[in-house]
This record gives sequence, structure tokens and C-alpha cells, in this order.
Amino acid sequence: MKKKQYEELYEPLELELVAMARWAKATGARICVLFEGRDTAGKGGAIRAVGGPLNPRQCRTVALAAPTEAEKTQWYFQRYVRHLPSAGEIVLFDRSWYNRAGVEQVMGFATQPQVDAFLKQAPVFERMLVDDGILLFKYWLTTDQAQQEERLRERLDDPLKRWKLSPIDLAARGKYDDYSHAREEMLKATHTEHAPWTLVDFNDQKLGRLTLLRDLLDRMPDTAVQPEELSFPPLDHPPHAEEYGVLKPIKDYPVE
Amino acid sequence: MKKKQYEELYEPLELELVAMARWAKATGARICVLFEGRDTAGKGGAIRAVGGPLNPRQCRTVALAAPTEAEKTQWYFQRYVRHLPSAGEIVLFDRSWYNRAGVEQVMGFATQPQVDAFLKQAPVFERMLVDDGILLFKYWLTTDQAQQEERLRERLDDPLKRWKLSPIDLAARGKYDDYSHAREEMLKATHTEHAPWTLVDFNDQKLGRLTLLRDLLDRMPDTAVQPEELSFPPLDHPPHAEEYGVLKPIKDYPVE
Amino acid sequence: MKKKQYEELYEPLELELVAMARWAKATGARICVLFEGRDTAGKGGAIRAVGGPLNPRQCRTVALAAPTEAEKTQWYFQRYVRHLPSAGEIVLFDRSWYNRAGVEQVMGFATQPQVDAFLKQAPVFERMLVDDGILLFKYWLTTDQAQQEERLRERLDDPLKRWKLSPIDLAARGKYDDYSHAREEMLKATHTEHAPWTLVDFNDQKLGRLTLLRDLLDRMPDTAVQPEELSFPPLDHPPHAEEYGVLKPIKDYPVE
Amino acid sequence: MKKKQYEELYEPLELELVAMARWAKATGARICVLFEGRDTAGKGGAIRAVGGPLNPRQCRTVALAAPTEAEKTQWYFQRYVRHLPSAGEIVLFDRSWYNRAGVEQVMGFATQPQVDAFLKQAPVFERMLVDDGILLFKYWLTTDQAQQEERLRERLDDPLKRWKLSPIDLAARGKYDDYSHAREEMLKATHTEHAPWTLVDFNDQKLGRLTLLRDLLDRMPDTAVQPEELSFPPLDHPPHAEEYGVLKPIKDYPVE
Repeated sequence: MKKKQYEELYEPLELELVAMARWAKATGARICVLFEGRDTAGKGGAIRAVGGPLNPRQCRTVALAAPTEAEKTQWYFQRYVRHLPSAGEIVLFDRSWYNRAGVEQVMGFATQPQVDAFLKQAPVFERMLVDDGILLFKYWLTTDQAQQEERLRERLDDPLKRWKLSPIDLAARGKYDDYSHAREEMLKATHTEHAPWTLVDFNDQKLGRLTLLRDLLDRMPDTAVQPEELSFPPLDHPPHAEEYGVLKPIKDYPVE
Repeated sequence: MKKKQYEELYEPLELELVAMARWAKATGARICVLFEGRDTAGKGGAIRAVGGPLNPRQCRTVALAAPTEAEKTQWYFQRYVRHLPSAGEIVLFDRSWYNRAGVEQVMGFATQPQVDAFLKQAPVFERMLVDDGILLFKYWLTTDQAQQEERLRERLDDPLKRWKLSPIDLAARGKYDDYSHAREEMLKATHTEHAPWTLVDFNDQKLGRLTLLRDLLDRMPDTAVQPEELSFPPLDHPPHAEEYGVLKPIKDYPVE
Repeated sequence: MKKKQYEELYEPLELELVAMARWAKATGARICVLFEGRDTAGKGGAIRAVGGPLNPRQCRTVALAAPTEAEKTQWYFQRYVRHLPSAGEIVLFDRSWYNRAGVEQVMGFATQPQVDAFLKQAPVFERMLVDDGILLFKYWLTTDQAQQEERLRERLDDPLKRWKLSPIDLAARGKYDDYSHAREEMLKATHTEHAPWTLVDFNDQKLGRLTLLRDLLDRMPDTAVQPEELSFPPLDHPPHAEEYGVLKPIKDYPVE
Repeated sequence: MKKKQYEELYEPLELELVAMARWAKATGARICVLFEGRDTAGKGGAIRAVGGPLNPRQCRTVALAAPTEAEKTQWYFQRYVRHLPSAGEIVLFDRSWYNRAGVEQVMGFATQPQVDAFLKQAPVFERMLVDDGILLFKYWLTTDQAQQEERLRERLDDPLKRWKLSPIDLAARGKYDDYSHAREEMLKATHTEHAPWTLVDFNDQKLGRLTLLRDLLDRMPDTAVQPEELSFPPLDHPPHAEEYGVLKPIKDYPVE
């Protein structure tokens, strides 16, 4: 999809997102969205598509670093729990507790009993959140290996995207099928009525974002809340210009 | 400035930002950037210009909510200290400890003795961070009232920007000069050799972003670090396509 | 029970506690003990009996203050989860998540649906912790109203204990039966095979402490771990005395 | 000093401590006490003497574990700042930021530039806290090497105290003079008018505790605040006894 077409289609969704956030704030709704999927699938872009138009004091992205030594010994969900939303908050998880059933499983960072325990606990854990009233959405972004290869190559070649590429990503290239397998096991165990998964085809990332957004917005309850009335009388004086005492602005960036 | 021109000028800066982040990671540098300025000046956009191209696991934005009752009674800097960068991190403060000398001062949320105490402590506090090796940058974004009025009006009228407008913002409209005055007092007390302020003219926000970025990058030490070599051998099989068992992707967003 | 007899009986238990802590450290066991019960039952004393002989870097007491406004809107267990033990830690909860089914229920700080939701979630939550390998012990300290009255009166009269008495405690006096009723409902819902309750009679607090300790220690797995060998050669010089330069010790407390 | 004499002398101080805590709560005073000194000097016992009679929801002991890898790269004071008191709180630091000038210095865990930087920053940091109104008390507990040897030997032999002994403690035995030297350097740099040190002779630990307590209480402002009046009418029915439905108390500890 071309950028221009994407932007035209995105704009009305942006309005709906803003309305959703206003609704969450007015009603105290707590929204929690998990973004999972293959490397290069487009999680970062999808997260920006959701959170970009929103107030950063209301909508947080959670992208946890590797656990500390102490965290590794704690109840697995403990370090995620602290980031769950308070009233009115929208929390976007850039990867989530499902790490354990994905990269940790495939790359051997977790043992099979740990993975099994996770797959047993995840639906129970999520059930508690959902029963508590948290609106939980779980998206898994899919992409064919041909696309993945192309994007990895692009990350390697494009200095702007080079940081997205780690030796682990390259080691994971050869494990496309292992990831598929791990995903299917994960879906079997955790695609539940109370917390279903949604797969979105991200072979075209722009189209994928629109698809995800449309789905997310469609699944929200009626979020119509009027913005509060604000009165905006004219100033009673001509507008002032900045005046500088201690310090002046630095020279503008030179533009011919 | 037109969007297209901005994008052309921004692109090379993006590359430098990415290089800076690679350098910070390699050397363990800690970078801390404060964004202050008038309502509507363009702090959010400037923060996205800096952080947008970077790894969200390395570059965090800190946008604190109002303090809790307990926090209000603590040492003023306490709730900010916990967000200071660890090795390799870049932290962008969307408003900062300078709240006390700006909005809190002007809108009467802080007493004069509290403001005075803050103005006395801030340079001492910052001196400790800088002596500890943290790279601290303090930007204040300026804008004339005519621009501010136009942007407030736009926030009122544009549903996408409506959330940026609070009754406090409107109450602050009439206090343009009070903000100017508070800023000058703040600069007098806290524009120090070890932690100088930089004023950037944001009457044209796109130009302002370029100016800020150029300044930030110019003030970094030599940040040239080569990305690590990665080998990218061809796959030894044709690329696989996704295959779905438990669940299929949802229908794409309808595009004619 | 007389103090002297208590001390004699407590001493061997102290040794077992210390052995238990050494075992937890060596094996990475995580121990979590909840202390619940009526006001004045003796939770504080029981906690000191368990934690007193242990390393405060290993054994923490968690006594949470009232939740903040934001915490009140979160998943109920969220603020407790952050205090769960890491490997080798012993955490003593001075009141716990069961507040909701006790004081909050009886004093009307929680709604009936909130209490019902809690009673449904608590066993599930605890099941996750226990399945994860956390050793969870839940003690409820009982006391007759005659004892409670005597102790409340003592708190009122003894300036050393006066801080233990709040207006809420006095308001709760008249609700002895409501507390009994709430406890029974709580036991019905949360006395499970995986996380059973233990009631201990604290009409005699010293005896109650011994009973609780004996039970706790008996339920631990075999905790025999030898302390590491340390060599303690004689000093190769006569022991030195303190010498003071900058500052001397203050004058001793005057004892005739 | 004999236990009995100690207890008699301690009792009136306990009353003053309780009064001090009531005053702190009523006025919002923030009290911060640092306990430093040689291994075996008696920090733990001194802390229990101060905090023992107080409400654990008001008086916290902070005994930090070793820093994580990330914490090691942060501003040195960062991990301590989060534990500073809120209004009405009393915080007892079992070792403190002075670790850097003591054990870290002597045992080589910190470099000389790190120690120098610390000695330069500590008085500035403390000045900020004191100017903010925090009541800061710094105690260093002294003990001759003969006492220290005796206590180390006792820790080795007494199974109840064995956990207090680590290989580092034994390695530190031979460095009594290095500790003396490090202390003197530390005092030179950080014994300031706004945050003076107090040395207390703990060759007799019970006497040392009394001396420390007397000093602490004498340095507090007038802390007389009446406890609130509470009415304690007689019950309008005979006191109830516990009645058990779901579960009965376990058998008492057997006492002949």
C-alpha cells in the first residue's frame, strides 16, 4: 500500500482512537493491548499507529528490558503486573508475557517445564484481569518468510534500521518453522473465550496496521463521549511577542 | 516550513541520532534531555523528532502525572530521580523538575518559598548529575502569543488535537507575561555553566525541531562507533509462507 | 504464659528459624507468610517472633499503607504482587490481600461485588503462586472478645501502646460478630488444598506465637543445610583500640 | 551492662520515642536516621531499639541489597533517594550511602575517584535534604578490635548469630586500621554543620544504644503532642467468644 493511500485511510481511524481515549478517561476504562509476532512483523509501527495520536500521559508503551537476576527468580508475571493500567490508562505492550512461549521457547532461554507452566498459567492470569474489568486485546502479527528476509536485509543495509537487527534476530532466521510451531502451541493453550487472540496479516505492514486498528476500534464498546465545552474568548490585548532577557534563542537551522 | 522540505532536512539528522544512540549503547553514555516551554510550543513533536527513530528499549520518554499526596510531601526531586538514565540510556523529559518554576509558579500550585527553594536547589542538583557524568541538555521552546493563540484555537477546533487542551491551558492564556517573567527568573537562577539552557524559537515548529536537533547533535562528543559486523548468508531453502492451524488472520481492512 | 517460660521455649525454635533461613538462601526457596486476624490478636508480635532472629536483608515485613487513588483503580492484587519474594527471600505480610474480605468488608470500604470478586480470585491467584513454587502460609490469629476488650483498654491506657489504637479500631469493637461472619465466609471461599488456612488461638499471645512457629517449621521441607566453613585464624597482632581524629564519641548515657 | 538494668533505663526512652512518632505524624515531620559503623558494632540492635516500639507503617528500616547491574551505572544516590521519608515517616538506614566510603572503599569495590566523588557529593546531597526540611541524623558506632574479635568469634560459634558472618567480614578483620583510616577521611569530608556525624561508643552495646537514643531524642524539637481523645464506652453485651465453623484452631504448642 502506498504511503498516501495509507494516510488517507488512517486519518478517520485516528479520530476514532482519540475518541476512544477520551471515553477511557471519562469512564475510567482500562485498556491493555499486547503486540506479539515475528521479528520484523511490524510491532513498532503498529504501536505507533495506535499510540501516536494519543496523550503520552494517558497512553504508555511498555517495552521491558531483559529481566534482572532477581526478577528471573520471581513469579513469572510479577514484572509485567506492575505495568497494568490504572483507571483511564491505555497500555501498549511491545512484546509481553508471551515472550516465554515465543523467543524464550524457540531460542532455548526457557526450559520446557517453564514453557508448559506458562501456557497453563497465562489463560488463568488473563482471566483474572478480564474479570476485573480490564479490556485486554492480544494481537499476533504474521508475515511470510520472504517478507521477513527482505526486511532483515533492509535492516542490515539501511543505517536507520540497523539498530533493529541483533545477532539473535539472525540466529532466529533459520527457525522460522520453530516459531510457527511455538505459535500454534501457544494459540492452542491461550486462545480463550475471555481473552482471544487476533492474528493480523502484516505482509503489507500499512494494510496490517489499518486492519488491526479497525478490529481494535470495532471491539470497543460505544465510546462516544462529548469533549467538555470550553470557552475561548478573544484576548483583550494584542498578542505579545517573546522578549528575551537572560538568554536569546539560538540561531535557526540554516535553510536556504 | 513545508512538510516535504522538513522531511528532506530531517533525514540526515535521523541518521546522526541513530549513530548517537549506537554510541551511547557502546560506551554506556547516559543522556538526559529536558523539554520545557510554553503550552503549544511543540514539546511533543520535538520529543518525537528525537526519539522516533530510536529503539524504545533504549530511549524512554518520561511524562509524569500529577504527584500523589505522599509524593507532594517528599523531597521535590525524589520522583524525578528514579527516572534518570542508566548506562546507555537516553531519557527525554516531557516537562521536568522545572514544572515548579513554570506552571506551578504561575498558576499558584506552589508557594513562593517553594519556588525559591527550587531555584536554589536545581543548579546544585544538576551539578551532581553532570559531575557524575550524565549528559544533561535543557531546552526551552519559545513561541509568540500570536502563534500560541492560533494553536490553541486549532486544538479547540481540530478533534485530533482536542485532548491537548485543558481548562488550565485556557486559564493560562491570559498569563503569557507571567510565564515570560517566570521563565526569566528561572533562567537567571538555573542557566549555569555546567547545565546551560538552550532557547529554541518554535514559532515555526518544524524549523524549531531541526534547530534543536542540530544543536543537540553538535554538542555530543564524537559519537562514531561502527555497527557490529553481521553475516547474512542466504537461506538454504525457499522461504516459507505462514501456515495457520488454530486460527487464521482476520480479514484485511477493505481497500478498493 | 510467663515471659521466662516463653523465652525458654522460644529459643530452640529460633534456632530452627535460622536454619530455615539458611536453607532458603542455599536453595533459593521463596517463603511467603500471611498474618491475618482480629485487631489486637497479636500479628505484630507473631511477625517479630518469626523475623526477629533473621537477616533483615533476607526477611522483609510488608505492611502496606492505604492504597493511593490510582492503586484503588488497579487490579486488586497488583500492589501486593510487587512484594512477592525473589529466590531465597522470606516475606511476612502484616495484613495482606485479605484486607478486602476483612476490615474492608466489615467497615464498608469495599462493596459486596468487590468482596465477592476477591473471594473468587484469591484462590486462583494463590494457586498460581503455589504452582510457581512459592511456599505460601496463611495464618489467622483468633481471640475472644474478652481478651480483645482487655487489650484495647490496655492500648488506651498504656502510652507505649497508644499508637496501636485508632478510631477505626474502636468503631470495630461493636462488630466482633461481623468480623466472625466475614472470616467464616472468607474461609469457606479460600481455605483450599493448595493454600490452606491455619487458625491459631491467640488468647494467650505467647502461647499462640509458639504454636504458630511450631506449625510453620513443621510444614517446611527438610531444611538442613550446613553453614559454610569459615576459618578464623588468630590476629597476628594485639587488637587495636579505636583512635579518634576528627571527632570523638559523645559522652555515654549517665549510669550511676 | 546487665539486661535488667538496660531494660529499666530503656523504658522511659521508649515512651519518648513513641511521643516523637506521634509528633512526626501530627506535624508531617520527616525523620531519617543513618546507622553506620564497623561490622559487629551493633547497628541491628540499635535500629531495633529505635524502631521496635513504633508502628511499622510509620517507621521503616531500609537495608538495601547489593546494587543490580543497571543500578551500578546510575547516579550513586539514585537507589537511596527512593527510600527517603514522606510526611510523618521515620526511616532507619541500616548502612546507607556511606557504604561507598566504608566497605566499598576498604574492600576495593569502589575506585578511588568514585570514593572522592562520593565524598564531594555527600555533603551537597545532604544539604539539599536538610534544606528541604528532612531531619537527618548520622550515627557511627565505634568499637575496639578486641570487642570486634570477641563478637566475630561469637557469631562463628553461636548458631543463632552465624548468619551475621560472611567471608567478607572475616576478610575485613585484618583491615581494622584501614576502616579507621577510611572513617577519618569520611568524617573530614562529611561532618558538616548542616549534617553532623555523631560517634557513639558501642564497646558496651546496651550502653551504646541508650547513649544513641538519648542523643537522638535530645536533638528533636519539642515533640509534645497529645494523643487524640478516644471514648471507650462499655460493651452493651457480654463479650463473645470465638466460634468456629469451617476450621478450628490447631492444637496449642504442648506446654507441660
